[in-house]
Amino acid sequence: MLVVMQAHATDEQVRAVCQKIEGLGYRAHPMPGAQRTAIGITGNRGEVEQSSLSEMPGVGDVIAVSKPYKLVSSEVKEDKTIIRFPNSTASIGGSELAIIAGPCGVETREQVFATAERVFRAGARFFRGGAYKPRTSPYSFQGLGEEGLKIMAEVRDAFGLLIVTEAVDHESLEKVSEYADMVQIGARNMQNFSLLKLAGRQRKPVLLKRGMSATLDEFLMAAEYVMSEGNYNVALCERGVRTFADHTRNTLDLSVVPAVQRLSHLPILVDPSHGTGKRNKVTPLSRAAVAVGCDGLIVEVHCNPEQALSDGMQSLYPDQFDELMNQVRQIAPIVGRTAPETQTVPHPATVAAR
Amino acid sequence: MLVVMQAHATDEQVRAVCQKIEGLGYRAHPMPGAQRTAIGITGNRGEVEQSSLSEMPGVGDVIAVSKPYKLVSSEVKEDKTIIRFPNSTASIGGSELAIIAGPCGVETREQVFATAERVFRAGARFFRGGAYKPRTSPYSFQGLGEEGLKIMAEVRDAFGLLIVTEAVDHESLEKVSEYADMVQIGARNMQNFSLLKLAGRQRKPVLLKRGMSATLDEFLMAAEYVMSEGNYNVALCERGVRTFADHTRNTLDLSVVPAVQRLSHLPILVDPSHGTGKRNKVTPLSRAAVAVGCDGLIVEVHCNPEQALSDGMQSLYPDQFDELMNQVRQIAPIVGRTAPETQTVPHPATVAAR
Amino acid sequence: MLVVMQAHATDEQVRAVCQKIEGLGYRAHPMPGAQRTAIGITGNRGEVEQSSLSEMPGVGDVIAVSKPYKLVSSEVKEDKTIIRFPNSTASIGGSELAIIAGPCGVETREQVFATAERVFRAGARFFRGGAYKPRTSPYSFQGLGEEGLKIMAEVRDAFGLLIVTEAVDHESLEKVSEYADMVQIGARNMQNFSLLKLAGRQRKPVLLKRGMSATLDEFLMAAEYVMSEGNYNVALCERGVRTFADHTRNTLDLSVVPAVQRLSHLPILVDPSHGTGKRNKVTPLSRAAVAVGCDGLIVEVHCNPEQALSDGMQSLYPDQFDELMNQVRQIAPIVGRTAPETQTVPHPATVAAR
Amino acid sequence: MLVVMQAHATDEQVRAVCQKIEGLGYRAHPMPGAQRTAIGITGNRGEVEQSSLSEMPGVGDVIAVSKPYKLVSSEVKEDKTIIRFPNSTASIGGSELAIIAGPCGVETREQVFATAERVFRAGARFFRGGAYKPRTSPYSFQGLGEEGLKIMAEVRDAFGLLIVTEAVDHESLEKVSEYADMVQIGARNMQNFSLLKLAGRQRKPVLLKRGMSATLDEFLMAAEYVMSEGNYNVALCERGVRTFADHTRNTLDLSVVPAVQRLSHLPILVDPSHGTGKRNKVTPLSRAAVAVGCDGLIVEVHCNPEQALSDGMQSLYPDQFDELMNQVRQIAPIVGRTAPETQTVPHPATVAAR
Repeated sequence: MLVVMQAHATDEQVRAVCQKIEGLGYRAHPMPGAQRTAIGITGNRGEVEQSSLSEMPGVGDVIAVSKPYKLVSSEVKEDKTIIRFPNSTASIGGSELAIIAGPCGVETREQVFATAERVFRAGARFFRGGAYKPRTSPYSFQGLGEEGLKIMAEVRDAFGLLIVTEAVDHESLEKVSEYADMVQIGARNMQNFSLLKLAGRQRKPVLLKRGMSATLDEFLMAAEYVMSEGNYNVALCERGVRTFADHTRNTLDLSVVPAVQRLSHLPILVDPSHGTGKRNKVTPLSRAAVAVGCDGLIVEVHCNPEQALSDGMQSLYPDQFDELMNQVRQIAPIVGRTAPETQTVPHPATVAAR
Repeated sequence: MLVVMQAHATDEQVRAVCQKIEGLGYRAHPMPGAQRTAIGITGNRGEVEQSSLSEMPGVGDVIAVSKPYKLVSSEVKEDKTIIRFPNSTASIGGSELAIIAGPCGVETREQVFATAERVFRAGARFFRGGAYKPRTSPYSFQGLGEEGLKIMAEVRDAFGLLIVTEAVDHESLEKVSEYADMVQIGARNMQNFSLLKLAGRQRKPVLLKRGMSATLDEFLMAAEYVMSEGNYNVALCERGVRTFADHTRNTLDLSVVPAVQRLSHLPILVDPSHGTGKRNKVTPLSRAAVAVGCDGLIVEVHCNPEQALSDGMQSLYPDQFDELMNQVRQIAPIVGRTAPETQTVPHPATVAAR
Repeated sequence: MLVVMQAHATDEQVRAVCQKIEGLGYRAHPMPGAQRTAIGITGNRGEVEQSSLSEMPGVGDVIAVSKPYKLVSSEVKEDKTIIRFPNSTASIGGSELAIIAGPCGVETREQVFATAERVFRAGARFFRGGAYKPRTSPYSFQGLGEEGLKIMAEVRDAFGLLIVTEAVDHESLEKVSEYADMVQIGARNMQNFSLLKLAGRQRKPVLLKRGMSATLDEFLMAAEYVMSEGNYNVALCERGVRTFADHTRNTLDLSVVPAVQRLSHLPILVDPSHGTGKRNKVTPLSRAAVAVGCDGLIVEVHCNPEQALSDGMQSLYPDQFDELMNQVRQIAPIVGRTAPETQTVPHPATVAAR
Repeated sequence: MLVVMQAHATDEQVRAVCQKIEGLGYRAHPMPGAQRTAIGITGNRGEVEQSSLSEMPGVGDVIAVSKPYKLVSSEVKEDKTIIRFPNSTASIGGSELAIIAGPCGVETREQVFATAERVFRAGARFFRGGAYKPRTSPYSFQGLGEEGLKIMAEVRDAFGLLIVTEAVDHESLEKVSEYADMVQIGARNMQNFSLLKLAGRQRKPVLLKRGMSATLDEFLMAAEYVMSEGNYNVALCERGVRTFADHTRNTLDLSVVPAVQRLSHLPILVDPSHGTGKRNKVTPLSRAAVAVGCDGLIVEVHCNPEQALSDGMQSLYPDQFDELMNQVRQIAPIVGRTAPETQTVPHPATVAAR
């Protein structure tokens, strides 16, 4: 914390501020300058309440200098976090890019299996799809709920894909934690601290999306909430922020990828589907996201986007996802990563039989 | 919904789009123009999935024209909503401005009572104070919980103030609904749809704060969520939005007041404390909020802001709140409202005895 | 300037930063804290180049603490600036609110006179109207140029209104400076530093509008550009900033009024017409602007908005402006100001005869 | 243009709007829908003045549907624009990425030549450096002016690099147009329409940077201003927009690259230096920019960033630029481009002799 005095502040005013600081139990470090005096404060463990100082006579400004996060910080843990999953070679934060793909919402078993087969073949190791959908309108499709989770679990059994799906409240979190391999917390709930704590108390890894107007500090503090409850397997995800720009649904902020990597050991993914909201921009921005150095992608793919009950505008056709993977595979080695190869369906008969 | 064709679109392309629209079960209304053809779509009850049209050859743009909200709309209910409370003459949306004041958080019985007495005397008919606090850091003071609600209930008994306090999840909502007179949903939870639905199912009126980056449509749709569950007593509250501007904590968007009043019958309040984040701007912006025509104010007042465990920077001293009320009282009649008069504590002995 | 070391920074790293600072000719003030060390820098008159420090081993952050403006600062000049005009009792920054009204653009002599008569009668002491129009499209009406200025000068002669009009480049600035009483620099040119310097070299007072995404510091620095050339008669003007909000053309940031008044002695006006872009919001936001404490308003009024060649959507009808003035007159005394009274046209015959 | 009636609008109100439209000389196309009626307007060549319609009884909304730009549009010119330069094989918009590099400002002949030699060797075909600097503070270094341009011209003679430098007003534009190969219009002047027209009247190609809060439409309209004066060699440049995000100086909006390419034939470059404001993010975002499909980069490189008089924080060291080029060279082929190879200084003796 730093108190900057006004240019005309008197010596008595400076002394009064120093005494106030010491009275609050901290140490004051006055630094007389050519134009004005600044006073450093040390000894504070948490926040100093600024108002007691900022309104004193002669005080120009009070500036906070410490970062509030601890567990997410690379100062606390230097090695990058790699999230691993039981019975799977896939990981998030390792040398192989984590590719998560699937429809926006789980609609029918057929739709999900048809999409899963295509994204599996294209190389995805993770499968996404919402069973609980946060929708702007109460009259829009809200998801299949547990029924949807069961379909997702079947997909895991059939293809060996790891399941990533969103929880929106206490009740859905319990179900998601039971059926899925990774719990997604959506952008609208990034500061639903109650949900973050619950996510920290269950044991599945958490995919935490950045809020629409979250600063980097707020984003990291949301992860800190999860970690402070004992769950250290958190992957961050940039999905676009809200700005005045109207040519995309959101403005994808790729600079947050190196910014996170500088401050934190947590992996950071990019969602180019919500980040742009337009199908024709998903592949270019996916290339950019891999090139900037992210740890993976989460992409909406739908076997039949025109019939999608939500977000069809931004869902790729399976052929487009094949091409996206092709391009990502070429860029990955340039940033020291690999991208997963195409895969053949393990026991097609089994799948078909279900 | 309107499809705008490209300037060079051929007649066949226009016909193909019309056929597609009719195939989806709607009616197509082609309008040839000097430069390009536009095609209106009618007959759709909900959203038309745009992607099936926007990617067709010759299509330039697809534009949605219907508003998605129903129950909040002044097209559905022309009379302004007035929220009334049992055993109280106070209301929200009536001719008297609703003045809600109190500390950011409930800290101790003494702090709460000392503040309550002052805001009561100054004219407030509603008392605010958080028992469940959404804090950016998991290491910050999180509120007293039910203990805080009990103190708030005592304040009601002592002063006849109506209690407004925030619920942050299912559990706290049940408690708040039990103890308080009005349930606040905070900005961070404006799109916590699960919480909105629960707030719609309980019977206490709801104070819904605008999200930090919520458009007017999203704000109204959040209220629609509450109302769609059967609770029609919703008051909206502007509390500042997030912009690049750095001289205030948020940018208070007072233009949303007349904008809401044009579209909806719901009352709209203004929170100048969170809206500016700076004590010295609360009174000027309170004057402005009343002058713009809002239905009331929610203001942070603390008997001792320097000792506040949260938001002390933006809390008024009781004397400042007296002055704020003085000024508001003068502006109210100019916009056809009244502001509540100063009050004398009913049974001071009773209060003191507690 | 303050250097914040990382938590793990070694003593050698701290020493190296201090030596670097001293080597650059400044004084270093190390302040060891519980978690990390901060190092204050004094002795710098201008900017310290941060990069030489921010990339040193062990450095976490470098924070600037001094404000860059001088002449605009209330630290340099405590008394509020009042801009006066020769041969007129009107002023900007004095106890009477400065009311500037008129059409967006000067279109015809008839339109201008008809509007001028109405705003004069309603109480305006200043008349606005663009002869040089900055338009987003090169194909839109660009203004009448010098012909328009001559019409404006006639308005001054007929009604005694002071003329405020925009200059967009070197050439138009010369003309505006010749014909008008006050030179307006528009939002799009707020960082056209070349134009600001020219405005500082001519002698007419300057109305400087805030840029669409200008921070308070940038806004004040733009005024500093004008003042640094010797012209101290600068009035600032808030006209809305660009945000994600889509219910108004811009988001009017009324909190900048008390913010400017805290830092600077310059008067600050508000433009509710561009600030909202919607006629039905101009009067409510005008009330709010006066209530927040601004020094005056600049309002678009058109005798026939439906025929306006630009910005008709946000122009008031003369009757609406009468009503606006009525309301403003009632609010002004509450904030210690007066608003100009209605006026009768001095020599109606003269005016009619022209 | 489309008029959307309110749900309760009467048939008379619909008829009145249609008559109004026809009275204005356009054609009205009423489209009755299940919930409300919409009325299309055709026959308008420019803007219809909306206010005459939006305030009529029964009107809910008025929506503009035509795009205002013409010459920049790919509807007018399908082939991508390739900007070529006399006596050079370099181009912008062709298959080879245009790489523009150099210091923020021209400070001394030594600094410029030392930097030029390094960026030339690394493969840059264009050299940037400001002789006229738009600075936020009037007390900051403002550039060497014509003296700086002469140094830049020497660089061209010595290395064959094409010179790109900024013009800030009429006077500097004349000089820049005389000495340089390409005229840069900076972000702060993107809506300095007077300067845009002058840039359109001189014959050197123009590099037009996006304004800090410019929408895509405004960006394209600024280019339209230049082209409407007869200069069709315009390259656009994304350089970051202003948002609430505080981890970078600006938020680089890479999605604007595919968005521009969808609407316009003009080439679009990316400036990762101003786009991030932080040296450590320039290379990652350069990779991302090339991967997203841009036509080239403009990068700040300084032989000695710690001594730079401006923007040192974001300038790369020459070795870092070598590495950037290395990485870009690997990504280019994946998006169907080439990046320029390293070059050997043509006549080192000549250079040294100067």
